[in-house]
Amino acid sequence: MPVWGVQRGNEVHMLVVKKFGGTSVANKERIFNVAKRCMEDYKKGNQVVVVLSAMGKQTDVLLDMARDINPKAPRRELDMLLTTGEQTSVALMAMAMDSLGVPAVSLNAFQATMHTTEDYGNARLKRIDTGRIRFELDSRRIVIITGFQGINKHDDYTTLGRGGSDTTAVALAAALHADSCEIYTDVDGVFTADPRIVPNARKLPEITYDEMLELASLGAGVLHNRSVEMAKKYGVQLVVRSSLNTSEGTVVKEESKMEKMLVSGVAADKNVAQFAVEGLENKPGVAFKLFQHLANHNINVDMILQSVEHDGTQDIAFTVTRDAVDEALDTLERHGETSLKCEKITVARDVSKISIVGAGMMSNAGVAAKMFEALYDAGVNIRQISTSEIRVTVLIDEKYTDVAAQAVHDAFSL
Amino acid sequence: MPVWGVQRGNEVHMLVVKKFGGTSVANKERIFNVAKRCMEDYKKGNQVVVVLSAMGKQTDVLLDMARDINPKAPRRELDMLLTTGEQTSVALMAMAMDSLGVPAVSLNAFQATMHTTEDYGNARLKRIDTGRIRFELDSRRIVIITGFQGINKHDDYTTLGRGGSDTTAVALAAALHADSCEIYTDVDGVFTADPRIVPNARKLPEITYDEMLELASLGAGVLHNRSVEMAKKYGVQLVVRSSLNTSEGTVVKEESKMEKMLVSGVAADKNVAQFAVEGLENKPGVAFKLFQHLANHNINVDMILQSVEHDGTQDIAFTVTRDAVDEALDTLERHGETSLKCEKITVARDVSKISIVGAGMMSNAGVAAKMFEALYDAGVNIRQISTSEIRVTVLIDEKYTDVAAQAVHDAFSL
Repeated sequence: MPVWGVQRGNEVHMLVVKKFGGTSVANKERIFNVAKRCMEDYKKGNQVVVVLSAMGKQTDVLLDMARDINPKAPRRELDMLLTTGEQTSVALMAMAMDSLGVPAVSLNAFQATMHTTEDYGNARLKRIDTGRIRFELDSRRIVIITGFQGINKHDDYTTLGRGGSDTTAVALAAALHADSCEIYTDVDGVFTADPRIVPNARKLPEITYDEMLELASLGAGVLHNRSVEMAKKYGVQLVVRSSLNTSEGTVVKEESKMEKMLVSGVAADKNVAQFAVEGLENKPGVAFKLFQHLANHNINVDMILQSVEHDGTQDIAFTVTRDAVDEALDTLERHGETSLKCEKITVARDVSKISIVGAGMMSNAGVAAKMFEALYDAGVNIRQISTSEIRVTVLIDEKYTDVAAQAVHDAFSL
Repeated sequence: MPVWGVQRGNEVHMLVVKKFGGTSVANKERIFNVAKRCMEDYKKGNQVVVVLSAMGKQTDVLLDMARDINPKAPRRELDMLLTTGEQTSVALMAMAMDSLGVPAVSLNAFQATMHTTEDYGNARLKRIDTGRIRFELDSRRIVIITGFQGINKHDDYTTLGRGGSDTTAVALAAALHADSCEIYTDVDGVFTADPRIVPNARKLPEITYDEMLELASLGAGVLHNRSVEMAKKYGVQLVVRSSLNTSEGTVVKEESKMEKMLVSGVAADKNVAQFAVEGLENKPGVAFKLFQHLANHNINVDMILQSVEHDGTQDIAFTVTRDAVDEALDTLERHGETSLKCEKITVARDVSKISIVGAGMMSNAGVAAKMFEALYDAGVNIRQISTSEIRVTVLIDEKYTDVAAQAVHDAFSL
């Protein structure tokens, strides 16, 4: 990653992108906290780009207004409505900075030229023309940009879907060749486990993109997958840190300077339910048909387990998120007797996933066994197992989630 | 004015611009009322452009938020904040129309290309590229456009100042060669006097631009001057009508088909205070200096009266709006002894203006005298007089406002 910035005397000045979520700008006091934080960077001589979400629960307030008018409101008009949320945040932030004597300018998606795909509600960023942003930075202004929103080729507003403001920040950092992209949250960084579940969880100083991706997809919830993928693709160095204190946070990058840890973290995810479809004919195309039906309803399937044949039939188990259970069950039951010809469909709603993630796992065979042993010692039964190169996930009964997370955390001395 | 629209069979379809203010879209019920009203026009085959203000008191709510953060917030950022108000209105209106089954699309100032001068907070519309609007109209959509807002050459949001949404509507009607520009208010049209003061006031079916301009500047308050000026310049036929009922309203146009009325209306304005600056030297430049001091503080001066010389000195009286009294007094007192060298400055805060307006007045000498007679008969003392070609204004004590308005109204049998 090239060092970008202005050389003045012995100091190298940096270009920093800082992203703050809705809770960080929820009221006047917090807006000023963020403004002061950005001012510190600015006064060091750095160029500062700030990405903001809508204030507090404003997006939900707007969605409620829309639903009240039209429960099936067109997505284009929903995006037109929602984008007012971030525009309010950035304008107020610019006013706060002005009152602190710091030159600042707010830009919305039109002004920052955040070009996206056409899809309303779930667009992807395609291109940013950085001319205006560069001009404002070169004029020594802090540039405050609306997160989550873009414009498509029709010149209509789009929104980027969940975690969208993180993606805005990473895309801007990539387009501006920023030295760093800081994502501010309400936790101190990325931990070896959820500190609410595992009290002795430890903050990681560094983590690789791949580890972060596995953790994000496992419900660790600090960064959204799409932003980590984009950071990896463009080599943007991410820093996850707290907006409440000045601790160092966790750096997310390609290769850790530290020796590869065997296991860098334990993740728990309770938003999961397990389906078992029993007595399926053992012939080609059965699994395809099953998952095709689910895909047709946009139901994402996670851990899949296919049993060995027994008396000419086989069973398939898989997991979905809990909000998809009813629609998945409905879909499978409608097709159960006709195209699928299965004997029985069961759902376990009270299950959870426990995962260990670590780049060092690839070259170490005993990791999974050690995890299973720790769970056995803690009296936790394993319902299903799934692995990737840098991850091992087990499905267990939800009531054992905390016990299991602690046991696995201790087993790897995290 | 050319007839614009699509000829289908024997019907001529029209292009209509309809403007609704903040109270007309203040809640769900009213939003649907407006949506249905526009739908009726649409279903006749007309092309419909709707201009909306921010909902209810939303602009004031946003201004309060801004003041709380920074009482001297930069105007650019204020405009960035305020423009979210109309964007919210138009998005919700599009959703309401969609739920009624009417194709509609909302456009903000970027999308409708409402180019303005640079001035934040008080910009003037310069140019509208109607391509997008035409495309949407030709696709048989109702086009809902944010009033009050524009973009300047920096691609920054601007706002148009007081009465801005009316101006947006008139400018769109001019650019689109609309057949009619309907301004919806909470009154039935333009009256011969304020019905709250003069109970037998009558709604005028028609009025000329010039008459409307005089009435608007006299506090009749139905239409803002700038929008009437623009309508006159581009020959846009305005209709002022109620959003609460379907009565015909008042048509504002170049020439009334009716015989020119001697007097078409009586206007009363209580937002006025009178200054008297006594004992000024009678030499060139004194009046210039006096008004220059006030202009330097952006204080608008209205009716001016200069007395005949008496013992080498003269008096100057003038009126200002009441919110400007303190600053005007402060300014004059500071300069009173030095550059102005006047003997005495007095202020009458409890005065009001009564005016009669009528295009027929130009060719009729007795009008002013008839007005003064009516006031004399009613026991109302006149403090000051000012006239234009189609207007006579008198300044009186505020307590006589209603009596005077009624007396003058009756004298001209309005």
